Amino acid sequence: MSPTKVIFDTDPGIDDAMALLFLKSSPALELLGITTVLGNASIDTTTRNALFLRQHFDIVAPVARGAAVPLNGVIDPVPDMVHGANGLGDIPLPEINHSALHGLEASRFIVETVRANPGEVTIIAVGRMTNLALALRLDPEFAPLAKSVVIMGGAFGFNGHSGNVTPVAEANIHGDPLAADEVFAGNWKVTVIGLDVTQEALMSNAYLAQLRDGAGADGQLIWDMTRLYAKFYHDITGVDGVYGHDSLAVAYVIDPALFTTRSGPIRVVTEGLAIGQTIQQPDSRQFRPGPWSDLPSHNICIACDTPAILDLYMNTIVDAA
Amino acid sequence: MSPTKVIFDTDPGIDDAMALLFLKSSPALELLGITTVLGNASIDTTTRNALFLRQHFDIVAPVARGAAVPLNGVIDPVPDMVHGANGLGDIPLPEINHSALHGLEASRFIVETVRANPGEVTIIAVGRMTNLALALRLDPEFAPLAKSVVIMGGAFGFNGHSGNVTPVAEANIHGDPLAADEVFAGNWKVTVIGLDVTQEALMSNAYLAQLRDGAGADGQLIWDMTRLYAKFYHDITGVDGVYGHDSLAVAYVIDPALFTTRSGPIRVVTEGLAIGQTIQQPDSRQFRPGPWSDLPSHNICIACDTPAILDLYMNTIVDAA
Repeated sequence: MSPTKVIFDTDPGIDDAMALLFLKSSPALELLGITTVLGNASIDTTTRNALFLRQHFDIVAPVARGAAVPLNGVIDPVPDMVHGANGLGDIPLPEINHSALHGLEASRFIVETVRANPGEVTIIAVGRMTNLALALRLDPEFAPLAKSVVIMGGAFGFNGHSGNVTPVAEANIHGDPLAADEVFAGNWKVTVIGLDVTQEALMSNAYLAQLRDGAGADGQLIWDMTRLYAKFYHDITGVDGVYGHDSLAVAYVIDPALFTTRSGPIRVVTEGLAIGQTIQQPDSRQFRPGPWSDLPSHNICIACDTPAILDLYMNTIVDAA
Repeated sequence: MSPTKVIFDTDPGIDDAMALLFLKSSPALELLGITTVLGNASIDTTTRNALFLRQHFDIVAPVARGAAVPLNGVIDPVPDMVHGANGLGDIPLPEINHSALHGLEASRFIVETVRANPGEVTIIAVGRMTNLALALRLDPEFAPLAKSVVIMGGAFGFNGHSGNVTPVAEANIHGDPLAADEVFAGNWKVTVIGLDVTQEALMSNAYLAQLRDGAGADGQLIWDMTRLYAKFYHDITGVDGVYGHDSLAVAYVIDPALFTTRSGPIRVVTEGLAIGQTIQQPDSRQFRPGPWSDLPSHNICIACDTPAILDLYMNTIVDAA
């Protein structure tokens, strides 16, 4: 079977870097391009980081710079204490050659790449949904030409997990709720990997040490950049290690059988107390006509096979190292 | 130990009637008054039903008529298909003597009764929170004089349960979201019995038949009025029986050890997509300062001992019959 073509829309970000290494190491996936968006850091920083990771991971696909601000113009505070001031755990970074940057803006790059490969491209989006929403606005007809869209974002309250920005809102969605609402209204098949499952997949420090020892310079890089991230999680929640977050979106594309899903249309709260909350109306239940009526159904992940996902991640990267 | 003094704020309603029979049958509780509110039917109907139930159950405590409209003036559609056109499963009802109605409006009755028994009165509220909010507005200082407030309402997503009006909103809260938000801001101790637990306590038709056979005329009445209710649940969800709903609030007051709770301030979404959603910020987690900051913590029930609750309900009513 030929590998699945992928666009990786990202705001590196430590877990973004971990997911990118996973993606480029998988023989099941073919990376066509990296598009950047604000989020874990400013667009300048996430784009610089994407270029650095591309270089460090020997990735051929280009980087296209994307949105600097969310659709509503309101930029959430940058989570320095999570990803560091440089977005990659404050590891020292070399000078980066920006000439590797693609000439197209991210949303146009997404549209043109999907249109050039109709029915073949899966978009894995692990930051704000801004670039995807802009792509839909740019070309309202292109969505059905994507093979699928898999996003890391949202929180639906399964497995006892709540939001991480507010009790109901996850950062990627809270950071651009309007964009996410437009993406869920789009005429494509979206699968949502939310905190419900990503917080089930803890990568312990021992696991990360094993990755360091088995995956050469890339393993060492992940180890180095996760030190700050692991300290944050330990300080806040007492856990040992880091959550897999963005890597679970990649795992889903490689092997969807590792996840249990629930289908139904999804809306995002765009103002007020619950801003940034993702709400699915399950197809399995009847409700009065309302804001979910006549919208396309998408899948949310409500459970996952954590040991198998951790094995898949480790083996994919170590085998490719 | 002397029985706990209780005001029962209610919108009968079939499960309200079942809870009232439970309450009046329990030697652990002393009913001081029944206050009515719109909800499962109009205020005229719920008040008529409360007077009927008072007479049928040989209750001494008075009925005080309460709010006819929610604080925001928007009356949700009356759920005829759930509780019947007469609110009590369309069983035939006799003429009711309205002279038994108390002279005070419900919110003033609540304030005066609590003030007359400082530190002793538990308010069990199983309809819209309108009367409680009006009581707080009438006398902002009275709240700390209540022993506690136990409400049936809300949905927090535990145990796979969602809302019953929208994917996130439960009917009692959706029916007056502003009142609920004011009640949660009040300076009293509120415990919330939401769909998370009430939908765990299914009373099967066999269980209801056992109640009918063991509890005389009152058991027969519950059986008769639950026929429509059970048909509704069967048609919509395929379950055999009816959910305990309001009776779980009474069970909590009799024996709180039957429930597991989580503490934290609660807000209610009062407009937009998620209107009527109850959102708790758990005390056990850290979040940025926001709408939950500086509000009093309340308990929500996240799990319950269903067999013990069903036993308590059955035994209490049969023993008193």
